[in-house]
Amino acid sequence: MRMYDLIAKKRDGGEMTRAELEFIVGGFVDGSIPDYQMSAWMMAVYLRGMTDPEVAQLTDIMAHSGDMVDLSAIEGVKVDKPSTGGVGDKTTLVITPIVAACGVKIAKMSGRGLGHTGGTVDKMESVPGTRTALDQEEFFRQVNEIGIAVIGQSGHLAVADKKMYALRDVTATVGCIPLIAASIMSKKLAAGSDAILLDVTTGNGAFMKTVEESIRLAQMMVAIGTHNGRRVAALITDMDTPLGHNIGNSLEVAESMEVLKGRGPADLTEVCLQLAANMLVLAGKGTPDECRAMAQAVIDDGSAFAKCKQMFAAQGGDVRVLEDYSLFPQPAASFELLAEQDGYIWSNDTEKIGNASVLLGAGRITKEDVLDLSAGIVLHKKTGDAVKKGESLCTFYGAPEKFAAAEAMYRSGLVYSDRKPEPAPLVYARVTSDGVERF
Amino acid sequence: MRMYDLIAKKRDGGEMTRAELEFIVGGFVDGSIPDYQMSAWMMAVYLRGMTDPEVAQLTDIMAHSGDMVDLSAIEGVKVDKPSTGGVGDKTTLVITPIVAACGVKIAKMSGRGLGHTGGTVDKMESVPGTRTALDQEEFFRQVNEIGIAVIGQSGHLAVADKKMYALRDVTATVGCIPLIAASIMSKKLAAGSDAILLDVTTGNGAFMKTVEESIRLAQMMVAIGTHNGRRVAALITDMDTPLGHNIGNSLEVAESMEVLKGRGPADLTEVCLQLAANMLVLAGKGTPDECRAMAQAVIDDGSAFAKCKQMFAAQGGDVRVLEDYSLFPQPAASFELLAEQDGYIWSNDTEKIGNASVLLGAGRITKEDVLDLSAGIVLHKKTGDAVKKGESLCTFYGAPEKFAAAEAMYRSGLVYSDRKPEPAPLVYARVTSDGVERF
Repeated sequence: MRMYDLIAKKRDGGEMTRAELEFIVGGFVDGSIPDYQMSAWMMAVYLRGMTDPEVAQLTDIMAHSGDMVDLSAIEGVKVDKPSTGGVGDKTTLVITPIVAACGVKIAKMSGRGLGHTGGTVDKMESVPGTRTALDQEEFFRQVNEIGIAVIGQSGHLAVADKKMYALRDVTATVGCIPLIAASIMSKKLAAGSDAILLDVTTGNGAFMKTVEESIRLAQMMVAIGTHNGRRVAALITDMDTPLGHNIGNSLEVAESMEVLKGRGPADLTEVCLQLAANMLVLAGKGTPDECRAMAQAVIDDGSAFAKCKQMFAAQGGDVRVLEDYSLFPQPAASFELLAEQDGYIWSNDTEKIGNASVLLGAGRITKEDVLDLSAGIVLHKKTGDAVKKGESLCTFYGAPEKFAAAEAMYRSGLVYSDRKPEPAPLVYARVTSDGVERF
Repeated sequence: MRMYDLIAKKRDGGEMTRAELEFIVGGFVDGSIPDYQMSAWMMAVYLRGMTDPEVAQLTDIMAHSGDMVDLSAIEGVKVDKPSTGGVGDKTTLVITPIVAACGVKIAKMSGRGLGHTGGTVDKMESVPGTRTALDQEEFFRQVNEIGIAVIGQSGHLAVADKKMYALRDVTATVGCIPLIAASIMSKKLAAGSDAILLDVTTGNGAFMKTVEESIRLAQMMVAIGTHNGRRVAALITDMDTPLGHNIGNSLEVAESMEVLKGRGPADLTEVCLQLAANMLVLAGKGTPDECRAMAQAVIDDGSAFAKCKQMFAAQGGDVRVLEDYSLFPQPAASFELLAEQDGYIWSNDTEKIGNASVLLGAGRITKEDVLDLSAGIVLHKKTGDAVKKGESLCTFYGAPEKFAAAEAMYRSGLVYSDRKPEPAPLVYARVTSDGVERF
């Protein structure tokens, strides 16, 4: 087999066989296929597409290019909840304790933030003392004992994906649905859960900018998971506006705890309840209505918050901060960003809000950047809100020398209007192997 | 400007500006743009195409990436005649003396053979003593004195093309009409002739397999030349069957001399007369009919053959071999390849005939291969001919240990039939900036 012929086949719209995909992924990982051939092939994939069976096989091969986590030592159905990323996307910290409190095991590996989107592991580490690097034995023991552990993703999962992503990132082949789907799902297949609920974010703060693109990506990921023997469903959730008010690591932990205590922002609470209910459905705990009621009940009776504290405590975290947020390490300074005029906020580019937060120190531009875990933004006015000139739109937290750049970034995405925009739904659709249900 | 954005622009079907193309070609030549980005861009070009003005600018930029030959020291119109290559394609050796004998200056740079197609410079070197590496002063002086010089192409013409071609060759982006057109025309623009007659070969022995593809390539090359201030026309010639009977270096020289002596094979003579007449038309020597008569006249009166001898003599060649072919260095052995059955030759894959000739030592598989200038094939039966079992189809010349592999290659492209195939035209069409004239 020659890579040249496989590039030509995809260039001409052909469907790769399993053996051909194994040759490509294996050769790229071991270095026998050079970057310049792989990038030509990926551009051909970008422009010619892939069939569902083709992507399913590519994903399985990418998953097997690194460690395959075996969760069989943990009893019961294990459910994962990856998100395609967003700004202020703190749902994992809310949902996983809810689902665990309902009796479904959570053995979750999460990522760190990069670019304008945050990562769950960084947020957890803002709770002083929390360890996110557990060895496998400790990880399994914690899940078996208390039903939940959330740790950092091993660097040895889906090693082909890491190398492919780095090349896509410099050859304009990132925004390709089959390659995005294979990238996300290869890590999730390797991570070993039986069922996967995908949170596919959509809008200006998300990777997919339109609902239709998000549905196509969700369908492809559901097909990949189903083809590889996993139970998979997806919710298409809105990311035209950040969920809740807080962006930044300890700020998002605090807001998540508010939801678990039953007093969180309505939008964040609603999305978390829908995601949690769908995870419970995938785990076989009942009908959608029954599962939604179950999720609400563990918030109301305090058991979800208790489960969350139990998890942080087991991983070494100082859980006093979860009760009293003033015990978090505090930012150096704060700054109020004021409205320049009266009107409605017509739009407020979420990616730019995320980038402003990165500029404050809450996120990374390169992998080597060190985070300021107390930095971030608290939004007071979001898209659709009425404002008066001079009112505070949001508060910045961080080192004062960073406020000017963050302000310029934030304001560059802000549009006022004398009209109130139509409110967007929080959840657009649910995608399963049976089809698409639009809300 | 970032290469990433330019890849994305072409991926999405955009048209590159001149400044963008300068950035890409310049950056690739100086190494600031890595191979893996260039190959992704070229795959995007392959699948998205280029407009005529876009290719014309790319070609001009590629031409200027190396030396630009200035032929103004030679008086009169200089006409070039590049071919897109073929097997047994010895027309250059016939046509250039004809045109020079008609008073049009020939200052031609030719290439060496690679793969299944031969090169004029190799053929010339089969005449003992012939030098094909003249310095510029000697080259110009010879053209001014005797009206003709054919030399090896400088390694410093269109250096971007050389680097781009090497990458296309390993990333399945060779067969892309805009990139083929830019590659051929960049060298021709750099080589400095005022007018260019393109011989665009078509069929199983050529780069373009169909007449329609060949016409598209020709149209694009005519547009490139015209846009860059050159007079350009193209003939679409058949390469489903080799021209004449001889394939191999000294074998092809001998056959070319037969045409100049007025006793060459009818197919080769006819194509050479049409090509020569069209070159004379481009040089402003008269109408097509007048130019055809002029070309015939210089064969009939012996002045074309005399001009050819004069050129070889000026370049140090032993011209006695042009009179008496038995004075050429002789091959080690010969071998008759016999028909296995009665019937007609239905098809005889020209690329495979070319590859058989390479296996005999007449061509190169890699650039480092040393040629056997006496090796090759003389065809006795071509497509459409009737054969009897046991008759000789062709004679191989070369080292006897190479005959078996060459025979297997030759026979793998041979199909017999009890029906006689329809004869193919020798020239399908003429393409100028005014349009396409089909024959």
